[in-house]
Amino acid sequence: MTRKVVIIGAGAAGASAAARARRLDPEAEVTLIDKGPLISHAPCGIPYYIGGVVKDAGELAVYSPEEFARERRINVRVNAEAIDVDSSNRIVLVKEGNSVVKYEWDVLILATGAKPIVPSIEGNDLRGVLTLRLPHEAGRLREEALRADKVAVIGGGYIGLELAEALRALGKRVMLFEMMPHVLPSTLDEDLAKLIHDELIKNNVELHLSEKVVGFRGVNGEVKSVITDKGEYNVDKVFMGVGVRPDVDLALKAGVKLGETGAVYVNEYMETSVPGIYAAGDVAETWSMVTGRRMYVALAPPANKMGQVAGANAVKGRFLKFPGVLGTAITKVFNLYVARTGLTERQAREWGFKPYSATVKVKTTAHYYPGGGVATIRLTADEDTGRVIGAQVIGNDRLIAGYIDTAAALIGKGATVDDFFFADLSYSPPTAPVWHGLIVAARVLSRGKY
Amino acid sequence: MTRKVVIIGAGAAGASAAARARRLDPEAEVTLIDKGPLISHAPCGIPYYIGGVVKDAGELAVYSPEEFARERRINVRVNAEAIDVDSSNRIVLVKEGNSVVKYEWDVLILATGAKPIVPSIEGNDLRGVLTLRLPHEAGRLREEALRADKVAVIGGGYIGLELAEALRALGKRVMLFEMMPHVLPSTLDEDLAKLIHDELIKNNVELHLSEKVVGFRGVNGEVKSVITDKGEYNVDKVFMGVGVRPDVDLALKAGVKLGETGAVYVNEYMETSVPGIYAAGDVAETWSMVTGRRMYVALAPPANKMGQVAGANAVKGRFLKFPGVLGTAITKVFNLYVARTGLTERQAREWGFKPYSATVKVKTTAHYYPGGGVATIRLTADEDTGRVIGAQVIGNDRLIAGYIDTAAALIGKGATVDDFFFADLSYSPPTAPVWHGLIVAARVLSRGKY
Repeated sequence: MTRKVVIIGAGAAGASAAARARRLDPEAEVTLIDKGPLISHAPCGIPYYIGGVVKDAGELAVYSPEEFARERRINVRVNAEAIDVDSSNRIVLVKEGNSVVKYEWDVLILATGAKPIVPSIEGNDLRGVLTLRLPHEAGRLREEALRADKVAVIGGGYIGLELAEALRALGKRVMLFEMMPHVLPSTLDEDLAKLIHDELIKNNVELHLSEKVVGFRGVNGEVKSVITDKGEYNVDKVFMGVGVRPDVDLALKAGVKLGETGAVYVNEYMETSVPGIYAAGDVAETWSMVTGRRMYVALAPPANKMGQVAGANAVKGRFLKFPGVLGTAITKVFNLYVARTGLTERQAREWGFKPYSATVKVKTTAHYYPGGGVATIRLTADEDTGRVIGAQVIGNDRLIAGYIDTAAALIGKGATVDDFFFADLSYSPPTAPVWHGLIVAARVLSRGKY
Repeated sequence: MTRKVVIIGAGAAGASAAARARRLDPEAEVTLIDKGPLISHAPCGIPYYIGGVVKDAGELAVYSPEEFARERRINVRVNAEAIDVDSSNRIVLVKEGNSVVKYEWDVLILATGAKPIVPSIEGNDLRGVLTLRLPHEAGRLREEALRADKVAVIGGGYIGLELAEALRALGKRVMLFEMMPHVLPSTLDEDLAKLIHDELIKNNVELHLSEKVVGFRGVNGEVKSVITDKGEYNVDKVFMGVGVRPDVDLALKAGVKLGETGAVYVNEYMETSVPGIYAAGDVAETWSMVTGRRMYVALAPPANKMGQVAGANAVKGRFLKFPGVLGTAITKVFNLYVARTGLTERQAREWGFKPYSATVKVKTTAHYYPGGGVATIRLTADEDTGRVIGAQVIGNDRLIAGYIDTAAALIGKGATVDDFFFADLSYSPPTAPVWHGLIVAARVLSRGKY
């Protein structure tokens, strides 16, 4: 009998799952349903279109729904909103235009993603209070930005920082509000975040730290000011970037269990608590490769991989295992690259480790080679095991991406300080100093052993 | 009793060993002896001075001998040539100026390095036939290059390629001779080396592959032509870059055993076959982290680490273990970065593995992000174990260094194809595609599993 696989949500995880299920079961009937007009979508590119780095918003999508449907023989339903799931009868109801269509499934994959958090404060529904969701809205967001002189960005996470840069590239006056004492509060240690503060200030971003936005005031339904616990600021537009939360509405209707983070609980096979239902991507909970503890990250690379695992297991049973994540992330903030993986020192302490760190400032080329960059590296290790459990790297060289990937590779394989020191990393005068920065950091971390 | 540590050779390994011994035994008498005028020297920077990228040859050295001696309380003897060792009586004889000085040692560390191979062919002693040895000769080499119009570079290894680029930067006509069918014959697979051939040709390097140099002809003792098995070519200067061999002259006098590669045999503690004598760096043999087999690599980063291990163990006994190398290396060839680690597919086959490879060509940014580079990646795995055993990466982005370091980190920790696929690597549109090239390669390598 033909297996019916229905996937709700066609972002990174959903599209990967669909492609994978199709590939591993050429007989299956694979249906991919998304409430928007796009598939394989992600918001990561939007700031670069707003700022003018990417000229054509159409380029932000990888595949058109039509291509994807044709090339992979997948029944792609866009502008189709799944509104209810009956897990006993294995049915999902989908609103397509004015009708409600019933899809039967043998296997259901929930890949409904995340939605931007909009704090429930006064004025959050005013025109001109904007959130980043999907690439097809990029054009409108850029238009809105172009029409403004003064823009507030609420939230100093990755999206907030990328938006601040984009808006400065358009010559706008930019105020960045972060209620915590530093940007990237949940992913970077405070003293390192200060390097980003300096870069923001150098690029004329007005930085409002430890300042909580409590509402917006408008005139004729249009936002005119941001009200915080410290003052009121006239603005023409507001971009919200306070983070995302898993979009579990449909999951709750399906009756699957949520995990401690509020995302859908899944095991290493991406199975939910309900037989026949998988979840993957930003709607699903994951866990740390370092601690084993449940965590929630909404990032495209793990979403893609969770999608692969869910799609494969949907048609092959327990075929693949997802090993968890390190929370590896990077962003560019003007001329700085900011990257992290594993635990920060603060997180490590909160999670019961006995962390100790080495922080070094190094060149990214041989000392005599002109034009090289500078990187500040923090490695954090655990006193009890000697394992390195986290890395943070900030610097003005594209190679920062390579530094964090190297650290993530080692940490993911349980590397100790010794393993870091003896990693056989590459050297040539234009690309590295003879003692690579990560090895210098490991040497400091060894406390005299090296 | 004060321990007397004598180190012969003050290159990367010797200087590291001296610093380490001093640090771990503040009471020891540490003597560092070098036949040249420099310490902590390496030839890696010379091509960049010849080509004019580095303006001041003085910058190529990290420390002056005086600084090093003063700051670390090390007895530094430069322009001092060790001419004999008596291992029974623990004495080394050193020629300093016109006198021979006798140094007693409790521990001796041989760090005499490598010397450039000069093939014993007719005319190799003509004026204008040049080799790269030490940074203090960089000035003279650049002068020689500047005076020439037509220059031959013999050997298509790292130094040969870097010299070709440097000489083209000076506007010279450059002929590159390599007796094997492709450049980097011992470190890269042939089809990948062709990408370098294209780059060399594009930059007007005249490429003579599969062509063996059999002699040089001169007039009045000055080189005037290169004679090969295919023809004779007029040149003004010849740069030799056919590789190096371990400088074992003193080691043989000390009576230590050589290994199968012709370098000094050492165990993981850097102990030679003679009690009390260690060896480290380019004079010493090492072994592959992948195969465990003995191999010889003359590269600065492992030399430094071997020096650390030898220096530490010289004063603390069996304190540190050297884990071996992957032969990780990178070079810049005009606008290409060429990098490798572990085994090539050909090496893997020669060494008895059942290798299979995936070769992919990928972007180094999100597809829509302008200005990104392109990388060709080969991952090679072993059929029997599923382990990845080698990586080769060529591309026009500095990030290639990060790709090879990430691969080296994983391979060094015994990573499988699965580990590569699930490595939690970083993503942001300016620094990576959402599926990192290494993961794309791992996916292909999985043969349908992912």
